Amino acid sequence: MQKVSADQAQTVLQNDLILKVARGEEVERPPVWLMRQAGRILPQYRALRGKLSGFKELVETPALAAEVTIQPIDELDVDAAIIFSDILVIPEAMGLTYEMVEKKGPFFPETIQQAADVEKLVSGDSAASQLHYVFEALEITKRELAGRVPLIGFAGAPWTILSYMVEGQGSKTFSKARKLLYQNPKLAHQLLQKITDTTIAYLKLKIAAGADMLQVFDSWAGILPKAQYSEFAIPYIRQICDAIQEVPITVFAKDAWFALEELGQLDCNTIGLDWHLDPQDVRQKIGPTKALQGNLDPCLLYAPQEEIAEKTQNMIKGFKKQHIVNLGHGVYPDTPLDGVKCFVNTVKAYRY
Amino acid sequence: MQKVSADQAQTVLQNDLILKVARGEEVERPPVWLMRQAGRILPQYRALRGKLSGFKELVETPALAAEVTIQPIDELDVDAAIIFSDILVIPEAMGLTYEMVEKKGPFFPETIQQAADVEKLVSGDSAASQLHYVFEALEITKRELAGRVPLIGFAGAPWTILSYMVEGQGSKTFSKARKLLYQNPKLAHQLLQKITDTTIAYLKLKIAAGADMLQVFDSWAGILPKAQYSEFAIPYIRQICDAIQEVPITVFAKDAWFALEELGQLDCNTIGLDWHLDPQDVRQKIGPTKALQGNLDPCLLYAPQEEIAEKTQNMIKGFKKQHIVNLGHGVYPDTPLDGVKCFVNTVKAYRY
Repeated sequence: MQKVSADQAQTVLQNDLILKVARGEEVERPPVWLMRQAGRILPQYRALRGKLSGFKELVETPALAAEVTIQPIDELDVDAAIIFSDILVIPEAMGLTYEMVEKKGPFFPETIQQAADVEKLVSGDSAASQLHYVFEALEITKRELAGRVPLIGFAGAPWTILSYMVEGQGSKTFSKARKLLYQNPKLAHQLLQKITDTTIAYLKLKIAAGADMLQVFDSWAGILPKAQYSEFAIPYIRQICDAIQEVPITVFAKDAWFALEELGQLDCNTIGLDWHLDPQDVRQKIGPTKALQGNLDPCLLYAPQEEIAEKTQNMIKGFKKQHIVNLGHGVYPDTPLDGVKCFVNTVKAYRY
Repeated sequence: MQKVSADQAQTVLQNDLILKVARGEEVERPPVWLMRQAGRILPQYRALRGKLSGFKELVETPALAAEVTIQPIDELDVDAAIIFSDILVIPEAMGLTYEMVEKKGPFFPETIQQAADVEKLVSGDSAASQLHYVFEALEITKRELAGRVPLIGFAGAPWTILSYMVEGQGSKTFSKARKLLYQNPKLAHQLLQKITDTTIAYLKLKIAAGADMLQVFDSWAGILPKAQYSEFAIPYIRQICDAIQEVPITVFAKDAWFALEELGQLDCNTIGLDWHLDPQDVRQKIGPTKALQGNLDPCLLYAPQEEIAEKTQNMIKGFKKQHIVNLGHGVYPDTPLDGVKCFVNTVKAYRY
């Protein structure tokens, strides 16, 4: 699990708490960051966003993406930055463009329906290397962070990316994507392999551009039956984990309570947990070596501050050590900033 | 768990397989029905629906609701009818009207935000007794079924109903509804109690109108952390189960894998399972007395027929006995009718 040499990180980073925990080293308190911390919870983000034509302009303009990536470090003093981007840049690089529709979410004018659609997709390094704007955003961020905290890069897990490429948009059931698994499992595997090849190339380019750590998000893990998760999701996440040996990697498979044992066998450093999971149950299922990340209920940040502080402390005690503090989901856009700060400050004041 | 006397049901019903299983009696094969079987999977439903102004016209016109309730009995020969209606008739009876927006789902022009909103809600029998069109639909259906199969009545669980009343529409996160639990738990409990009182009165009137069996749907169970599910959901479902002793009752709490032990302690006859749950794991957690209902992946019905037949048989074997066959979710609108028929016929041909 020691995917990064201590030298490499510590010579440049003033705060490497999160890398230490991912590597299994002792720390005096858990590090803390929030999924979606760069975004609508921050007034400075909303101010910048209001001046732009849309979400994609922000994703595709490196200086702006870097700016919003650093905002939560300045405002919240969290222990890691995560590059501002979107998991759907991968389908776009593969040849399937998306739009981000205000208040509705992503929309793909064309979707994957048949073998010819998969055949014509670009994949691997040829696809990933097109995403200049992401790598440039990482380079600018890394330079401007100047070692304050580690920089996290990310990608969607192949099953989640397939879901969008086939469904064409968000869905309560993702029944079109799921239909493909039953009606044409061979084509699904071909598509998953192309996505995986592209994702590995992409993550390696992110490392080259300065990412100190990586996270793979399987946002739609929870809609697959266990047997299908084992067949269509786990093997591709495994390929990614096996390919990434340069920096620590976290796998967050939301709602995949039924797949914990399999997730525990991946060659990753950290497993992300949603807010339903009990840390000690998870520890028993995945074994002693990995760090765990999570898992406060994001809605707790709507509560009075005393309750946020108390439940955050209880959560940390529940995890014992080897813990990276986060919410169990991305922070919701209307979360009060004071609630977020109370959460972060409680963690930073904690001592094991 | 013997909530209905055998005499009462058997004198009138030609097929009482589902009631027998709910009561814990021996049967030669499991009964089968589908959640949302009355609806868009049937061409005769789509033909009728196309002539109407909207979904609510169908819900509120007893003769038409009865007609679509009986369609799946004629077309699919399933072992139970479920009255065509909507869980949101309860908020409407309480004073909060809803619209059903084509392709988007329910929308409440007014929502519950503060104490005054809860205070002015009608509740209990005064609210429930307004739903004449539901009771009349049950009476017509019962008469026209003429004992062919039992008739199931249903309601949403109080937490799910609260979610819609506060959120005002469907949501990926239901964060407004969840915010209420953290910011004003007292008000949430007051609202839940009013919903519960109304639901109990409503279900008793459904029994009086001919329902042979009841099901409570907690569609949004899976978004609450375990501790909140214990506090805000389970106690109100328990009140409902305790109050209903006349007919068997089923509780289906979707995605509530973390609450199985508590669900197992309810005074209900049957627990509905989503497609993630392993029947033998569930059996261990909830004990030997209750029937289990479910839990084929609804997307399996997109698969080739041989696969549907094989996996349906395997599922039945996995449950052993005390099993009512169903999908693990409502059948999806674009499911091929031949897939549905293959599923139903496989169950009907099965012998223990």
